[in-house]
Amino acid sequence: MKKGRLFVISAPSGAGKTTILKRVITRIPRLVFSISHTTRRPRPGEVDGRDYYFTDRTRFLEMVEQNRFLEYAEVHANHYGTSREGVDEQLGKGMDVILDIDVQGAAILRKSGSVDGAHVFIAPPGLAELERRLRSRGTESEEQLLVRLANAEKEMRAAGEYDYLIVNNQLDEAVDLLCSIIVAERARFFRLPSGEAVKGILE
Amino acid sequence: MKKGRLFVISAPSGAGKTTILKRVITRIPRLVFSISHTTRRPRPGEVDGRDYYFTDRTRFLEMVEQNRFLEYAEVHANHYGTSREGVDEQLGKGMDVILDIDVQGAAILRKSGSVDGAHVFIAPPGLAELERRLRSRGTESEEQLLVRLANAEKEMRAAGEYDYLIVNNQLDEAVDLLCSIIVAERARFFRLPSGEAVKGILE
Repeated sequence: MKKGRLFVISAPSGAGKTTILKRVITRIPRLVFSISHTTRRPRPGEVDGRDYYFTDRTRFLEMVEQNRFLEYAEVHANHYGTSREGVDEQLGKGMDVILDIDVQGAAILRKSGSVDGAHVFIAPPGLAELERRLRSRGTESEEQLLVRLANAEKEMRAAGEYDYLIVNNQLDEAVDLLCSIIVAERARFFRLPSGEAVKGILE
Repeated sequence: MKKGRLFVISAPSGAGKTTILKRVITRIPRLVFSISHTTRRPRPGEVDGRDYYFTDRTRFLEMVEQNRFLEYAEVHANHYGTSREGVDEQLGKGMDVILDIDVQGAAILRKSGSVDGAHVFIAPPGLAELERRLRSRGTESEEQLLVRLANAEKEMRAAGEYDYLIVNNQLDEAVDLLCSIIVAERARFFRLPSGEAVKGILE
């Protein structure tokens, strides 16, 4: 079976990433979100190995020391991380895996060179439009809003380090484009040396 | 205006390339075939600069000497060639350009490194199926058919040198896939050095 492909996806907050990903995942077969490890308790209905890999703090920190996480973070005193093995297991089953991580995490992944994947950046149409969207949500204080905008600007400067850029002007188009990118990447491979035949097509 | 992208597309004969390209070009806006130079006379209705760049033999051979063709060939005592300037002009207008050339021509382009583009190989589902398709056309002698099959096998060994592989099992799916590849490539770019912002997205 053909191994799946990893899609590393980042966006500044307010770019519409979550909405886009939710739609894309329902439209494309064999596409899943990566499953994180966490030290927080399972909530009712959550299944180990489906929603999260539930683990304890000692085990988690051991895995950190063993360099077994592609990325990890602490949120509200709980640890969250994406393990190399977890992602490899999904890829091995022929699933394409979406790794939804922030700009800093994605930069670390690219630098480490340890995982191959297509990196996609989703940008809002511009900072003015992002400000309008964040204000219309009305969920933040003026101060929080300014912090978010400053962060977004900083994050958008990193867009050029990604393989693909989706500017979310129009939701449907952004969804279509991400679907196209995933489908195209499945047909993509890295040039083989001259004379080396692609496995399977000569049968 | 954003410059267009070049798509170099090859396939062994019988893979269905012509049918696929005809459908794709009607579905995707701003996508055109490259315009060739030719020394043959214009046919009724053909327009210089739209169907071909019509030129004479002396001028054509001069351009060959000046290394102004990406590729060229002689067919039935007429010369045909794709000029660098012709393609650049279309790309400069923001059109994506399809360059439909054979495996040898595409290999020369890749080696020269002088043109950036996405290289797509369209393969039949396999040699047995290709033989079935060629036989069902019934347009060739047994000898011609065996030559075609031998050529196809040789050409299919080059598939790995391309960026994308489309196996034409099912025409509609192959058309969809080539459309996705073109749309995805438009959103693709080559990673900029860290800290270098993408033009335009911060406005």
